[in-house]
Amino acid sequence: MRRSTATVSLSGTLRQKLQAIAAARFDGIELFEPDFVSFDGSAAELAAMAGDLGLTIDLYQPLRDFEGMPDADHARNLKRAERKFDLMQALGAPTLLVCSNTSPRSLGDAERSAAQLHELAERAARRNLRIGYEALAWGRHVKRYREAWAIVERADHPHLGLILDSFHTLSLGDDPSAIATIPGEKIFFLQMADAPILAMDVLQWARHHRCFPGQGQFDLETFLARVLRAGYAGPLSLEIFNDVFRETPNRRTATDAMRSLLLLESQVRQRLAREAAESDDGTARAASERVALFDPPAVPRLGGYAFLEFAVDDTAAEALAALLHAMGFVRAGRHRSKAVTLYRQGAINLVINAEPDSFARRRFVEHGPSVCAIGIAAADAERAVNRAVALQSARFDGPRGARELAMPAIVSPGGNLVHFVAGVGPGVDPIGADFVAADNTTPDDGSGLCHVDHVALGLSPDQLDTWVLFSRAVLGLEPGDSLELADPFGLVRSLGVADRGRSLRIVFNTSSSRATRTALSASASGGVAVQHIAFACDDIVATVRQMRAAGVPFVPISANYYDDLAARIDLGAERLATLRELGILFDRSADGDYLHIYTASFAGRFFFEIVQRVGGYDAYGALNAPARLASEAQAAERGG
Amino acid sequence: MRRSTATVSLSGTLRQKLQAIAAARFDGIELFEPDFVSFDGSAAELAAMAGDLGLTIDLYQPLRDFEGMPDADHARNLKRAERKFDLMQALGAPTLLVCSNTSPRSLGDAERSAAQLHELAERAARRNLRIGYEALAWGRHVKRYREAWAIVERADHPHLGLILDSFHTLSLGDDPSAIATIPGEKIFFLQMADAPILAMDVLQWARHHRCFPGQGQFDLETFLARVLRAGYAGPLSLEIFNDVFRETPNRRTATDAMRSLLLLESQVRQRLAREAAESDDGTARAASERVALFDPPAVPRLGGYAFLEFAVDDTAAEALAALLHAMGFVRAGRHRSKAVTLYRQGAINLVINAEPDSFARRRFVEHGPSVCAIGIAAADAERAVNRAVALQSARFDGPRGARELAMPAIVSPGGNLVHFVAGVGPGVDPIGADFVAADNTTPDDGSGLCHVDHVALGLSPDQLDTWVLFSRAVLGLEPGDSLELADPFGLVRSLGVADRGRSLRIVFNTSSSRATRTALSASASGGVAVQHIAFACDDIVATVRQMRAAGVPFVPISANYYDDLAARIDLGAERLATLRELGILFDRSADGDYLHIYTASFAGRFFFEIVQRVGGYDAYGALNAPARLASEAQAAERGG
Repeated sequence: MRRSTATVSLSGTLRQKLQAIAAARFDGIELFEPDFVSFDGSAAELAAMAGDLGLTIDLYQPLRDFEGMPDADHARNLKRAERKFDLMQALGAPTLLVCSNTSPRSLGDAERSAAQLHELAERAARRNLRIGYEALAWGRHVKRYREAWAIVERADHPHLGLILDSFHTLSLGDDPSAIATIPGEKIFFLQMADAPILAMDVLQWARHHRCFPGQGQFDLETFLARVLRAGYAGPLSLEIFNDVFRETPNRRTATDAMRSLLLLESQVRQRLAREAAESDDGTARAASERVALFDPPAVPRLGGYAFLEFAVDDTAAEALAALLHAMGFVRAGRHRSKAVTLYRQGAINLVINAEPDSFARRRFVEHGPSVCAIGIAAADAERAVNRAVALQSARFDGPRGARELAMPAIVSPGGNLVHFVAGVGPGVDPIGADFVAADNTTPDDGSGLCHVDHVALGLSPDQLDTWVLFSRAVLGLEPGDSLELADPFGLVRSLGVADRGRSLRIVFNTSSSRATRTALSASASGGVAVQHIAFACDDIVATVRQMRAAGVPFVPISANYYDDLAARIDLGAERLATLRELGILFDRSADGDYLHIYTASFAGRFFFEIVQRVGGYDAYGALNAPARLASEAQAAERGG
Repeated sequence: MRRSTATVSLSGTLRQKLQAIAAARFDGIELFEPDFVSFDGSAAELAAMAGDLGLTIDLYQPLRDFEGMPDADHARNLKRAERKFDLMQALGAPTLLVCSNTSPRSLGDAERSAAQLHELAERAARRNLRIGYEALAWGRHVKRYREAWAIVERADHPHLGLILDSFHTLSLGDDPSAIATIPGEKIFFLQMADAPILAMDVLQWARHHRCFPGQGQFDLETFLARVLRAGYAGPLSLEIFNDVFRETPNRRTATDAMRSLLLLESQVRQRLAREAAESDDGTARAASERVALFDPPAVPRLGGYAFLEFAVDDTAAEALAALLHAMGFVRAGRHRSKAVTLYRQGAINLVINAEPDSFARRRFVEHGPSVCAIGIAAADAERAVNRAVALQSARFDGPRGARELAMPAIVSPGGNLVHFVAGVGPGVDPIGADFVAADNTTPDDGSGLCHVDHVALGLSPDQLDTWVLFSRAVLGLEPGDSLELADPFGLVRSLGVADRGRSLRIVFNTSSSRATRTALSASASGGVAVQHIAFACDDIVATVRQMRAAGVPFVPISANYYDDLAARIDLGAERLATLRELGILFDRSADGDYLHIYTASFAGRFFFEIVQRVGGYDAYGALNAPARLASEAQAAERGG
């Protein structure tokens, strides 16, 4: 399929937008009128610029408040349209988007609307241009695609067709099924937008909160499948009004835009294949064969975190080693060729990288002691990387010494590496092979940590949608509920993503406040920082007792927390006393319990969480995060 | 009246919140449970801290999901309540807020609800505590104050009363009239919140977008008048859930909070006086006499901008003087005792302050060349300052030389000075008296500038509500419509405020993007910067011709703008050609036209606008701002 995006979807000057759109390998653009109105060049210059970048101008938009007007207004509107036709010819833009009238002056008489659109199409035809009519969800008389289609049908002009926009249909809860019955050649253009489900005025929703497919909650798969079954074979385009995208560096937005279309295409390809297999009416097969929908390698089965790699210098390496030792990790080996040490406990591998002149060192210099790479176990590591690259991630190949394993990696949004590690399951040790066993360590039972439960990232607000899409498209993870936590200096939003088997969980935290710790860590790291790593254990009381005895510093929890817990949940006096004594936090869902505790921050950069899941508890104890945040703020207050 | 605020209304740790609340001279607090749960001290310690600060703990809140539950839940709820009673006794908090049940388990049987609340009140009575029952706008069965009152009436217990919250009533569009019929002594507590009118889910609205009285669009005057006529004489409290306040320095928020209550009290005082004069039922008079409502000096009649003062060093002074000269200003005088020069044209006075070791110099060192003070002409300058001080502004008295006029000033939010200048109207020259006429200037007709049309401020997002309230309370200005403008790097919101006579107009621009020029200028100035000054003229074509001939640099406007203008509005070929030639922008409302042009930025800090209003046009041409913003971004792009 041809892929296109509206210029309004990205930030920057029009020139910068086009460069970013071309760099993400789009075929064309929708030109949003205000972008052209303030452009400091002529239509011919813009057409030449787009051509040089390999982009066509597929659509000029919008012409507002046109159809169904009193005669005097209509005469003025035709003059206005002729000026836009002049412009479109100079631009080489073949199609004009006319959105349904919102003016209180419009009369809402379908016959009049059809006649006026017919006249517009007739004038367009003289210049070999086309008119696409679109139902705005807040149009005064026409809100739904069926209403718009009825007018297009009645007008019956070869240069007049329908434009569909998933937002306008799905935001009204309208059923896209009937799209499949519209003749494909009468659908002139297709705009795909996703959005979070919000209970708000649809105009505000539309102007501020649309997002790319895969970042929201709309069922775009069904929508697009219906359009393709109708026979549509034109461009797949993105018209996204989003406050955050207006502020986000446009190269990243353009990458997200392309990634979102590729993911959607691959989903719809599978959907149409299923529909073709289930029915024999032939339209699903025909739809799938008509357009070459994108088909990336599938996500392989994931096996959780294979390792986490920390960028440090020698001083930080020593301090971190001491903390890990107190937490029950053993120094399991030294890297064959680098200043890299492996620490282990249970199935947890922590790689401490102090190698000068390395990727890790560059991250350390920029961001201080921090997680610079994660390893994800995958049944087929090469396929995982190939999928990521097909979905617009950059591959990373670092230097590799003799006898070292190939460990393919990609660059995640924000710059950290994601390695895919071959082999999933017990007994497989793809990490250890690169390391020489340490001779000064003895086997140790550790403190009872089993595996990495989750990794929490602090994201700047503009990175959240990027990461939701990256984790969904590249890693096949699905988002859970979005929660709000109160930090003393602003709200923090928290969203977990996980694979179906819950082997790989990532939590995204973001804050629009500039003063929360989440915002501070995200901004110190250029937008993405590992804030904490949660280790799972089976007996948190024993684990924390042992760690406390070894001197691991934990965030102190107010006694009032336990009084309140006692009022809320009947845990029994003894159990409550134990939690209170050890500073362990408690959460309960309908499915199970979550016990957890946070270590003090390491060098102000990250911390660890110890967690125990009981039963089917599937969240992250987010309601307890304010206890930690307030505790840290109060410690800072005392310190300052 | 006693004045109180909920701890959730401010940012910071609980200790910091209390300090800020006390500094703003509140009498008491509502303690929001999560603030206490994470507090690192005991209830007794908190009570002592509040006592040391002169604050009482007036309310503990909330106890949720209590009334109308099945028996087993009710038994658990009573145990939970007893634990909170223990706590309230230790805190010395007399009243507990029970908000209407939102649980799907609640049964919605009014008799059961009344009986359960009665039992709770009975237990509270044993400890000499009181229960206040409040209707949440999103309660499951009880949403409106009349429903809550019916249950309180039925329960009929002296320790059970009603809590009213303006948000919950006005967000539902409910009529507050019936409040006046509730016995005053059964209203246990009163929470005042304002909000912008938003078409969104009421829970989201309530949790994120409440604001202080005078910052939103609710009719709080009527609401409070009704409550006072009912006989209420308890605290006037603020429970404001607002995302921005959570991020705003809490000292400023506390000042805003107090200012909002004082303004509201003064409005309601006048309202009750009017009502008492108009009717003889006595309740209005009684209400007004029962509580001592705040009564500040009235806003005097304003006479526009008396002067604008720029903080500069010698280099900037020279460059600015050259620009002003090209714009047709004359150097009208030197200050009697300071390195300060006065430039004049029409009724415009611009003061260029290069005095070392002055307030202006301190502003210059921090923020570069910038407006550091404005003078506002007022019929009674001393009264204007007294009102400002009564409404929590700090008075500023600078050093004054012999023969210089007293010019009382206050510090506006963000730190610039606002002087009030005695005398309003033609022929009055309170500024000139401080200056020795320059002997090297000859009278000049200038370029046709008449007066200052408006001043536009760039505000950080957390300053907007502060400035809305400041301009309303201190200056008596009223806000117009809020608009959104597209900057290439994010949205900018623009809101104008003005006095009734339109002599004093201020425009606030704010952006949540960190990359727009508005955000950059606001953040460079610590949150508040004069972005531009608009001068009015009667013949913009002649004025701009003259200025262009004198070399004044203007922001270039794309030719596409004029093509689009021609398609939208029929101005006539000749007029359009003139606008195009001179780069003048055009806007039209139902009431008139607005012609305007922007100068290039001075030192990257501020710029000037030349405007001509035709007819009753009452806005600021905001729809043309994107043309300027895009032009500047494209200039920067070429430069970079």
